[in-house]
Amino acid sequence: MSEHVYKIVQLVGSSPDSMEDAVQRALARASRTIRNLRWFEVVETRGQVKGGSVAHWQVTLKVGFTLDEDEATDT
Amino acid sequence: MSEHVYKIVQLVGSSPDSMEDAVQRALARASRTIRNLRWFEVVETRGQVKGGSVAHWQVTLKVGFTLDEDEATDT
Amino acid sequence: MSEHVYKIVQLVGSSPDSMEDAVQRALARASRTIRNLRWFEVVETRGQVKGGSVAHWQVTLKVGFTLDEDEATDT
Amino acid sequence: MSEHVYKIVQLVGSSPDSMEDAVQRALARASRTIRNLRWFEVVETRGQVKGGSVAHWQVTLKVGFTLDEDEATDT
Amino acid sequence: MSEHVYKIVQLVGSSPDSMEDAVQRALARASRTIRNLRWFEVVETRGQVKGGSVAHWQVTLKVGFTLDEDEATDT
Amino acid sequence: MSEHVYKIVQLVGSSPDSMEDAVQRALARASRTIRNLRWFEVVETRGQVKGGSVAHWQVTLKVGFTLDEDEATDT
Amino acid sequence: MSEHVYKIVQLVGSSPDSMEDAVQRALARASRTIRNLRWFEVVETRGQVKGGSVAHWQVTLKVGFTLDEDEATDT
Amino acid sequence: MSEHVYKIVQLVGSSPDSMEDAVQRALARASRTIRNLRWFEVVETRGQVKGGSVAHWQVTLKVGFTLDEDEATDT
Amino acid sequence: MSEHVYKIVQLVGSSPDSMEDAVQRALARASRTIRNLRWFEVVETRGQVKGGSVAHWQVTLKVGFTLDEDEATDT
Amino acid sequence: MSEHVYKIVQLVGSSPDSMEDAVQRALARASRTIRNLRWFEVVETRGQVKGGSVAHWQVTLKVGFTLDEDEATDT
Amino acid sequence: MSEHVYKIVQLVGSSPDSMEDAVQRALARASRTIRNLRWFEVVETRGQVKGGSVAHWQVTLKVGFTLDEDEATDT
Amino acid sequence: MSEHVYKIVQLVGSSPDSMEDAVQRALARASRTIRNLRWFEVVETRGQVKGGSVAHWQVTLKVGFTLDEDEATDT
Repeated sequence: MSEHVYKIVQLVGSSPDSMEDAVQRALARASRTIRNLRWFEVVETRGQVKGGSVAHWQVTLKVGFTLDEDEATDT
Repeated sequence: MSEHVYKIVQLVGSSPDSMEDAVQRALARASRTIRNLRWFEVVETRGQVKGGSVAHWQVTLKVGFTLDEDEATDT
Repeated sequence: MSEHVYKIVQLVGSSPDSMEDAVQRALARASRTIRNLRWFEVVETRGQVKGGSVAHWQVTLKVGFTLDEDEATDT
Repeated sequence: MSEHVYKIVQLVGSSPDSMEDAVQRALARASRTIRNLRWFEVVETRGQVKGGSVAHWQVTLKVGFTLDEDEATDT
Repeated sequence: MSEHVYKIVQLVGSSPDSMEDAVQRALARASRTIRNLRWFEVVETRGQVKGGSVAHWQVTLKVGFTLDEDEATDT
Repeated sequence: MSEHVYKIVQLVGSSPDSMEDAVQRALARASRTIRNLRWFEVVETRGQVKGGSVAHWQVTLKVGFTLDEDEATDT
Repeated sequence: MSEHVYKIVQLVGSSPDSMEDAVQRALARASRTIRNLRWFEVVETRGQVKGGSVAHWQVTLKVGFTLDEDEATDT
Repeated sequence: MSEHVYKIVQLVGSSPDSMEDAVQRALARASRTIRNLRWFEVVETRGQVKGGSVAHWQVTLKVGFTLDEDEATDT
Repeated sequence: MSEHVYKIVQLVGSSPDSMEDAVQRALARASRTIRNLRWFEVVETRGQVKGGSVAHWQVTLKVGFTLDEDEATDT
Repeated sequence: MSEHVYKIVQLVGSSPDSMEDAVQRALARASRTIRNLRWFEVVETRGQVKGGSVAHWQVTLKVGFTLDEDEATDT
Repeated sequence: MSEHVYKIVQLVGSSPDSMEDAVQRALARASRTIRNLRWFEVVETRGQVKGGSVAHWQVTLKVGFTLDEDEATDT
Repeated sequence: MSEHVYKIVQLVGSSPDSMEDAVQRALARASRTIRNLRWFEVVETRGQVKGGSVAHWQVTLKVGFTLDEDEATDT
């Protein structure tokens, strides 16, 4: 981290397979509209249960990215 | 929740009447620009006091919504 | 706070000089695109170390602002 | 509280109307099988959103009750 | 908030009717001896249960007020 | 979640293989006696170490389920 | 801990004498109906005051036990 | 607890002997000027070390008491 | 800390200049009526924003002081 | 505390007798290799249960000590 | 756990592959110089993002080990 | 952060002048024996009060550093 300003958004990724995959899906989706994703932090891990086993892993993330010169911060 | 990616934004609703009304006002305002609001969680309940009674209830919410295919996540 | 609805975004300001300067830089950057910044709260104070002293102070803030009539909330 | 031993269970009450009603419904349901409910504590307040307003208030409670002489504690 | 110094006291309001009423009763009682109550924050919500329903809502508040020039702070 | 009342129990699943497997084992065991498991939340992740590597992953879960009409809540 | 599944229940022990005695009383009561109690964790320590001194120490515990093959988990 | 309003103050009791004694000393001191002490909650347990053993146990308490009709709350 | 009993009050200091100055102002104000201030702990750091920069730093403190023989504790 | 730099280490003391004894054993062990132990803080209190009563009290401590001129800090 | 004294150190393991692998690498590194590693607890899960996917999983652990008779505790 | 393993130690820096100076003094002291200090996080800010103003700022830090090939981790 240098003298940049960063913004942090909160996302929930979801996957039938694993916690890691739920994180990757959230990051993949975010990277379609956010440039310069830098780091994430896992905030919460939950899941849906069906028939006695995990139907979806749901991982809530804080994701940080560099604000470019022309990027809005109000979102 | 299925395999979608969700986003969480934090809002403060304010009402002279009740905590429930403060929540409803925040959700009503958010729904003007966000499609697919799904759930909320109360993060903090505060208020302003005037003349020894509550002037405004202020409820801070985390609000989750489904990211559509074409929706930006950087906000 | 009156009957407005407010939004809270999370930012990280960074400065080689002091915690206060890191906060000011984050607010200055945010005010370029957000009208009506009202308050902030310090969430976390970290820093990078180089050669045994602080290279950058990094202060994470929650920043609250009034939502204008025509402002998007999904960001 | 005297020299009794108490047990605490965690419940989620749900109501379309208010937080208070969600609490009352959880307690009413619990009192059908638990004797001697004594106190509760609100742990979390969430809700479902449909069409931009609250569909259900969901209040998570810790509920404490006196263990009678012959009551099981493993549940 | 300007350059004043504020003090925060912790109170528990109690009401058979609702969470909001429990808050109002605590503020009404406090305003009999404290000038310049400004804001409150809900710290905890509990209650007593009798016959399977809520006998009293008990809401713990932090209440902030401006210290006047001649007011004691040790209390 | 509709107007049901839910109950939350706390379990620790254990596995030599992975965090996900520890969760699955706890849910599989719970589903032998609980109908209608709906969701879980990871509360804590710990483990035992033997010979410098992980012998068992131990994941503590909160598991929520719908209370049927005739189900006891005191357990 | 091996590959077992464990359950955690929350109890409040109460004693006029000491924190340790309040814990022991909760465990003694629990062991009348739960086989295989393994560990506890102190969650909260409170007490009742009468005449300016402690009338009862009240210690809230999380207590963990091994689930036997035939034991219910819904309680 | 009935429909009273309660106040909570924070005290630190100190004792060379035990945690329980540190609590009792704080309550004894408080009861010299506060009528109607009702309950306490342990917030923090610390201590001073001298010569490799505990010189003083220091227990921080929240202490709750009923506000009488004529009692000040600003303190 | 010796065998004294201590009391902790919560204050908010406010300054246009820095976090340190906000703390000093709160302590200066408290010392006008409290003898024997001993230590403080920063609980929260917030601020007001005007025109995109910090108008006032607001630092919430817990301040501890020795209770003298004749000092009231109910405040 | 003066202008020294302090270090904090985390220890778990264990005793069959009491929480206080578990703390004393951890400090006694630490003082064999650390000069200038100054204070501790209780972080967690747990225990092992055998035959329905406490086999060992396990108290986790943060222990602070002054760093002497020639003492390593990397440990 | 018997009557031993334990020490807890905090480590960050890092892996391009998974959370489990990040934990294993931290434990493998620690076991090169610490005898008798017993348990760990996951404190935080973060990661670096490059090109829209996880470059490194970073898992912060508390790791507990038995202090041998002749082992230093100041580190 | 790459595939290294990091260690985190907890220090308290102290300064009569400012929070920033207290941090710098802790880092300066640590860098005399630890190679490769990388980052810190402020955990707690306290201070001593004398004559109604701050005598010493005391800032507790978590400090992270890279473990070199030959460095001990048990400290």
